[in-house]
Amino acid sequence: MSWVPVPPESDFPIENLPFGVVRFPDSRVGVVVRIGDFVLDLASAGIEPYLCESESINLLMASGKGPEVRRRAGEFLCGTERGSIYPIDVVECRLPIFVGDFVDFYSSLHHASNLGRILRPDGDPLYPNWRQLPVGYHGRAGSVVVSETPVTRPQGLVTHGEERALFAATSALDFELEVGFVIGSRGTQIPPDHCEHHVFGAVLLNDWSARDIQAFENQPLGPHLSKSFATTISPWVVTLDALAPFLVKAPEQDPLPEPYLQACRDWALDLSLEVDVNDTCVTKTNFSTMYWTFAQQLTHMTANGAHVRPGDLFGSGTVSGMSPGEEGSLIEITRNGTAPIALNDGTNRGYLEDGDEVTMRGACGREFAPRIGFGTCRGRIRGNTQGEG
Amino acid sequence: MSWVPVPPESDFPIENLPFGVVRFPDSRVGVVVRIGDFVLDLASAGIEPYLCESESINLLMASGKGPEVRRRAGEFLCGTERGSIYPIDVVECRLPIFVGDFVDFYSSLHHASNLGRILRPDGDPLYPNWRQLPVGYHGRAGSVVVSETPVTRPQGLVTHGEERALFAATSALDFELEVGFVIGSRGTQIPPDHCEHHVFGAVLLNDWSARDIQAFENQPLGPHLSKSFATTISPWVVTLDALAPFLVKAPEQDPLPEPYLQACRDWALDLSLEVDVNDTCVTKTNFSTMYWTFAQQLTHMTANGAHVRPGDLFGSGTVSGMSPGEEGSLIEITRNGTAPIALNDGTNRGYLEDGDEVTMRGACGREFAPRIGFGTCRGRIRGNTQGEG
Repeated sequence: MSWVPVPPESDFPIENLPFGVVRFPDSRVGVVVRIGDFVLDLASAGIEPYLCESESINLLMASGKGPEVRRRAGEFLCGTERGSIYPIDVVECRLPIFVGDFVDFYSSLHHASNLGRILRPDGDPLYPNWRQLPVGYHGRAGSVVVSETPVTRPQGLVTHGEERALFAATSALDFELEVGFVIGSRGTQIPPDHCEHHVFGAVLLNDWSARDIQAFENQPLGPHLSKSFATTISPWVVTLDALAPFLVKAPEQDPLPEPYLQACRDWALDLSLEVDVNDTCVTKTNFSTMYWTFAQQLTHMTANGAHVRPGDLFGSGTVSGMSPGEEGSLIEITRNGTAPIALNDGTNRGYLEDGDEVTMRGACGREFAPRIGFGTCRGRIRGNTQGEG
Repeated sequence: MSWVPVPPESDFPIENLPFGVVRFPDSRVGVVVRIGDFVLDLASAGIEPYLCESESINLLMASGKGPEVRRRAGEFLCGTERGSIYPIDVVECRLPIFVGDFVDFYSSLHHASNLGRILRPDGDPLYPNWRQLPVGYHGRAGSVVVSETPVTRPQGLVTHGEERALFAATSALDFELEVGFVIGSRGTQIPPDHCEHHVFGAVLLNDWSARDIQAFENQPLGPHLSKSFATTISPWVVTLDALAPFLVKAPEQDPLPEPYLQACRDWALDLSLEVDVNDTCVTKTNFSTMYWTFAQQLTHMTANGAHVRPGDLFGSGTVSGMSPGEEGSLIEITRNGTAPIALNDGTNRGYLEDGDEVTMRGACGREFAPRIGFGTCRGRIRGNTQGEG
């Protein structure tokens, strides 16, 4: 029992204690753990300065002392000593990691099938490779921002059925509901069942996408400007230790993947997810439906000899369930904008409009305590302005 | 006239003075400039320690003092004082930049046309977007290595005409001859004619590629493991200031690109390039033939609001000329391995074999002094071994 009060419905009970980085009211920046509606300044809880007086948790992760620091923070929060805690609304959440490489996957069978049917109605919705490897590509690490950072509507080359593309602000701005995984220690050729030695924790991730820019630029090297303008993550890196009780069996894979991708342990995660556009919930789904697990993604990403480093981030790919109401992007929900959805305020949306706010939430163990939650991953769209920065 | 002797054929006369990072014989690591067959330890030449006692030139670039430091180094090398110079063969060249994001383009008309004809013999070799924007994608920053680093043959999923792919070492390992550009200062939505405020300099770049892995994984999100195992760059960042006299008019673009991509100034670069496989020269070409300039690439990359940061790197795309003997990759030279080339030692190559060494060289002003050269970008292939690192 902690001396910090935790509301019963909180995402952040003492069993969670995710790591984050904040700017304190005195302008110092440092590493904290979140508990209830407070953060604990680790520097005030006896944690060594080099691990917590930092602008990111990268050093803490790379030191290998993350689990020990989290345990000590938990003991401190339940002990007789008192350290500095701050209400969450007096600190400013910062990007918790310095992102090395960012890889984004495409591992929901339902999402990939939905997109295939929309974009290539005449062919097989899945390419022949899809069931044999977790398809993924590199995104822009420098565009990863923390929740609440405004997202400016990007410009790019778009066609409106014409041969000639015009440079214009996107009119098909979308979200993608994903879970992001943070690498804590270096490695290569990592077998799936070793993934907990390298994955430090997870965040919610919104892989903002401009569908019209993507449609024109995509061949033959994949998405570029349609994705590289912004990727939002939630501020709290929920540790794999805290998530471990919610690991479950993944859906069966058919065909069986090549041996290097086969795991003995369960690496799907029973994590409930939802998305609001403004005041309207547009998606409720569960991460356990993903075809490829994060363990397999990490294995694949390093199978060619590439190394992961502390601070690397990889996204699961859009999380879509099988049924209507479970799709993780507007392109699926609105059939590429042709079937707009009604919001509670009486307006319709094919794609996102300026001023719209997208909020993602996720939690494991929603029904039964303790609930291991992620908090919110939120961004508001602002209109396009130009200028050299 | 410098007190350091410079052979007449050197890539590194006093007019060049590219930056690099080396480990000195006493194990210190620091920033140097190269001159002739020597490096000058900038710390011994009166340069402020925070700019040169560093593992990369990122801080030097971000400080905005690069041009001033290079000028002062030049004055020092021609003055009466003496500083610490080291023969190049007693220092160990390190990766000169800490790479933020790495973007790779595809901007040679001849290369893109050659590949299109090989990979899609029945269609138009170029996709409709190719002449309207510089096609590019993000690569793996953490896999960028400095010249002389061995390159391990990657494994991945490959098909041999079968539906089912197998996990195996690539049998289609290729080089790609490219020029890499290093970002020195932050910016977004950068007009082409402002590019010298953001591009600090250039290197040679070998975008190693596994063609069989690429063929299977490529749809719909582009290359991933086929490229992410290694990208080699030359150790010397040749400044844009040194290259300025060799900027020339680019080939005419048809159709004229959208206004945001139009430049008034000349941004093609008259840079002679060649590639050896072992002791055999397999390619001689010139960088001035590129359809899209590096200025346009930078503009495009930031047109959606994405920021570049000091240390970001972007590759030109494979440099291929119009004629046989000018192709910048083996897939072009050997028609995807079907028309092997003979090396001087009597062996043939469709693709690279274990033990092969690929050496790239480049210089501006080869015919007339001063020659502004890049030195070598070299890597040797070693056979595949497995294991968690």
